[in-house]
Amino acid sequence: MIMDRLYNAALESPVCVGLDTRPDFLPGCLADKSWSNGEKIAAFNRQVVDATADLAGCYKVQVACYEALGLDGMQAYAETVDYIRRQGKLVIGDCKRGDISSTAEQYARGHFTGDFEVDLLTVNAYMGSDAITPYLPYVKDKNKGLFVLLHTSNPSSKDFQEQKMADGQMLYETVADQIAEWGKDSRGETGFSAIGAVVGLTYPKEFKALQKRCPHTFFLVPGYGAQGGTGKDIAEILKKSRCAVVNSSRGIICGHKGKTEGTDFVDYIRQNTQAMKEDLLKWL
Amino acid sequence: MIMDRLYNAALESPVCVGLDTRPDFLPGCLADKSWSNGEKIAAFNRQVVDATADLAGCYKVQVACYEALGLDGMQAYAETVDYIRRQGKLVIGDCKRGDISSTAEQYARGHFTGDFEVDLLTVNAYMGSDAITPYLPYVKDKNKGLFVLLHTSNPSSKDFQEQKMADGQMLYETVADQIAEWGKDSRGETGFSAIGAVVGLTYPKEFKALQKRCPHTFFLVPGYGAQGGTGKDIAEILKKSRCAVVNSSRGIICGHKGKTEGTDFVDYIRQNTQAMKEDLLKWL
Repeated sequence: MIMDRLYNAALESPVCVGLDTRPDFLPGCLADKSWSNGEKIAAFNRQVVDATADLAGCYKVQVACYEALGLDGMQAYAETVDYIRRQGKLVIGDCKRGDISSTAEQYARGHFTGDFEVDLLTVNAYMGSDAITPYLPYVKDKNKGLFVLLHTSNPSSKDFQEQKMADGQMLYETVADQIAEWGKDSRGETGFSAIGAVVGLTYPKEFKALQKRCPHTFFLVPGYGAQGGTGKDIAEILKKSRCAVVNSSRGIICGHKGKTEGTDFVDYIRQNTQAMKEDLLKWL
Repeated sequence: MIMDRLYNAALESPVCVGLDTRPDFLPGCLADKSWSNGEKIAAFNRQVVDATADLAGCYKVQVACYEALGLDGMQAYAETVDYIRRQGKLVIGDCKRGDISSTAEQYARGHFTGDFEVDLLTVNAYMGSDAITPYLPYVKDKNKGLFVLLHTSNPSSKDFQEQKMADGQMLYETVADQIAEWGKDSRGETGFSAIGAVVGLTYPKEFKALQKRCPHTFFLVPGYGAQGGTGKDIAEILKKSRCAVVNSSRGIICGHKGKTEGTDFVDYIRQNTQAMKEDLLKWL
């Protein structure tokens, strides 16, 4: 089962390398090529994967950065997720898709088969169960998984997620209970279900409460590095159960910025991945 | 301003033709071509636009149907939205994108410039203001608009949208107030702001209450035809103010199914568009 595989990968390394690659992140040695932006980004990503595959638990690819470049970008997205999977590594498509019924079926087909096939997909559940159930046949038959947006770490998560409901709990707690419910038929040997959740690192107390509330939910945690969270913050949670992968994007893939424009850019990126891995594991 | 343009188009015809085109919708005359699915769908869409441009207020393209076909599908999406705009018609990208800050900026760039450029984009605001503000420079400088998911017509909208908050209102009412707030600086001559909302047709009473609550919000209304709503349902709302476009997808673009496999398929699609327009306008 997919979450068993991710759990085991995360035991080795909880580091999720975020390939939110943008043209301005590229070192001169790639930026100066007479290729399209998409070709440059795909080449950058392949070199990052080669340089970090033994240090990373998994990869996350932020589709927005590729959509921003149009068809050329989507070609780079397709090449990137395919390359990661061919290296035997797990890849999360960070697409936060959110639609219902026959439309969600189309998204499931688009992201769990074909050019854009990933192992796990981030989704948005504002529309309720109808936005989740169309993915479940792929979870069951093709060993795929979801990460449902739960409690994000941005300032305006207070606008809705942290609004108090009539029953006294926060909206995100209501969402958490639904995520646990959606996942109850897809638990693997490790006890974690194929329906995970995205929870930010900036609220450690609330995160611990969620971990207790949803013991079968595996978490994708953004917010390390550029967004502010540290290894110590997550250690308190991982000490209790190894229930998460922790993503860093710019904190890793911009490691070379201001240091080199040459082909040694991957050395800095590898170094940052190694440092993050050590920072996460040293507290455990 | 974009919503003035859409308002005026909707005065002529509140019909939004939904190009949620899938390979199984194609008539034999296109399905049998030795083209890729994307090429067939792009050709179908162009013929639908040609056959309905004088009857439709605007078009909505459901990106999920194109993502399902991978790169070939995204090429068809790009060709379709470009074709609609070149005919001088407004096109809504039904992408329901939902991410924050620098990531949302990437989505804004991807859907308001370049290959995938549309006039209006549907978005998901679960993550709060940070998921909306990155689009506002494009609203201001490039005359673009948003439709934020508000109250959808699917059964599981009760899971979250219709949950009661501590202050006694429903979650979707909290979202409605935020949408009004986000739009207050982008009102056009008609009084409607560039930040619209998606509201389903299946709850007329609640819709009327939303219309009263958000007098400056323009609505994108799915749910006509295949999803169940009728012209009479929407007439009660449009009589008070012409605050909406009404989408039908399968109800229009599958008009030929079971009737013809020939090139006259567009006649049935035109007929269904005409019938929907009459059904909406006859009550007004």
